[in-house]
Amino acid sequence: MREISLRTHSRSELLDITAKVADAVRESQLEQGWVTAFVTHTTAGITINENADPDVGTDLLATLDKIVPRRGAYRHTEGNADSHVKASLMGSSVTVPVQGGGLLLGTWQGIFFCEFDGPRTRHVVIEVVGERAAR
Amino acid sequence: MREISLRTHSRSELLDITAKVADAVRESQLEQGWVTAFVTHTTAGITINENADPDVGTDLLATLDKIVPRRGAYRHTEGNADSHVKASLMGSSVTVPVQGGGLLLGTWQGIFFCEFDGPRTRHVVIEVVGERAAR
Amino acid sequence: MREISLRTHSRSELLDITAKVADAVRESQLEQGWVTAFVTHTTAGITINENADPDVGTDLLATLDKIVPRRGAYRHTEGNADSHVKASLMGSSVTVPVQGGGLLLGTWQGIFFCEFDGPRTRHVVIEVVGERAAR
Repeated sequence: MREISLRTHSRSELLDITAKVADAVRESQLEQGWVTAFVTHTTAGITINENADPDVGTDLLATLDKIVPRRGAYRHTEGNADSHVKASLMGSSVTVPVQGGGLLLGTWQGIFFCEFDGPRTRHVVIEVVGERAAR
Repeated sequence: MREISLRTHSRSELLDITAKVADAVRESQLEQGWVTAFVTHTTAGITINENADPDVGTDLLATLDKIVPRRGAYRHTEGNADSHVKASLMGSSVTVPVQGGGLLLGTWQGIFFCEFDGPRTRHVVIEVVGERAAR
Repeated sequence: MREISLRTHSRSELLDITAKVADAVRESQLEQGWVTAFVTHTTAGITINENADPDVGTDLLATLDKIVPRRGAYRHTEGNADSHVKASLMGSSVTVPVQGGGLLLGTWQGIFFCEFDGPRTRHVVIEVVGERAAR
């Protein structure tokens, strides 16, 4: 198990953490199985989406802002009720297959930490479950 | 593997099941790995969010009602088309890291069963995958 | 690990892949654990919902179209910005318990591949993690 720290710089932001998750898989020395990346926060989420055109992430954040406006008739009084809802819509973990000691992602897939109430220092727990290579 | 039963009391409701998931982890005697909690229904979901201020859950349910209104031009005729959509938006499982024989959750995180078509008796399957402590 | 190929026939479509996931579980010869099905695309997702009344899936797709309209002020210029957002709302994987060598799904649950930018040929990676039966 490995925990990584992230520094976000805006209230809403997507951070590509694919390389960090791939590092954790390499260090685990597991050849085959699954890796799960888990966000330990309630105003941030995690998702897999396109890593080529950053406009995809911009559209995702803007659409979430339309679906769950920052200002609304919320009861939670900390000004981040929308952040909590967005976190549940994206989810708190992603699970990705591991093959040959690396991530088995599609060509355009990246793993993105979703900041919804930044800027903050955030944490993601990464653990690989699977089998070591035969020796 | 353990299956827990829940009794819900409203059409829409969040039930904190963190302690029940933690119990299942303890009983598994696994030290390190992942626990997945899986909802065996199609009008209920599961999510991780804040366990301190209950207004967060109230806002989540109210926002889902705005995004997916109960009444609408749905084809499914059982009056719970919205419940099915909300179930898919939240998802049917959560996966949480296990460390030292316990749940590795963030300070404010709780695991919530999401009832969208209650009141009913519901079931959640919990299984831990990982390693036992060395003896 | 097994990879399955799917052929979709519309821009938006749900494909029931429950039997294919169950086949992969049988072939793995694992008795107890978890199976994860992972979509290797960024304009498609995967979800668990009702497999009895196809209207449930129709309502799900129609509701997603309302929440995330195809035409909008998107920056991504490929005409499928909505497909990317829908993919993140549904998620890229589902995890289902395995018991007795089969899927432990609720009575009405099916596993659905969610096409949001078809028709295309698509791929889903399936892997089972768990324990073999004692011999």
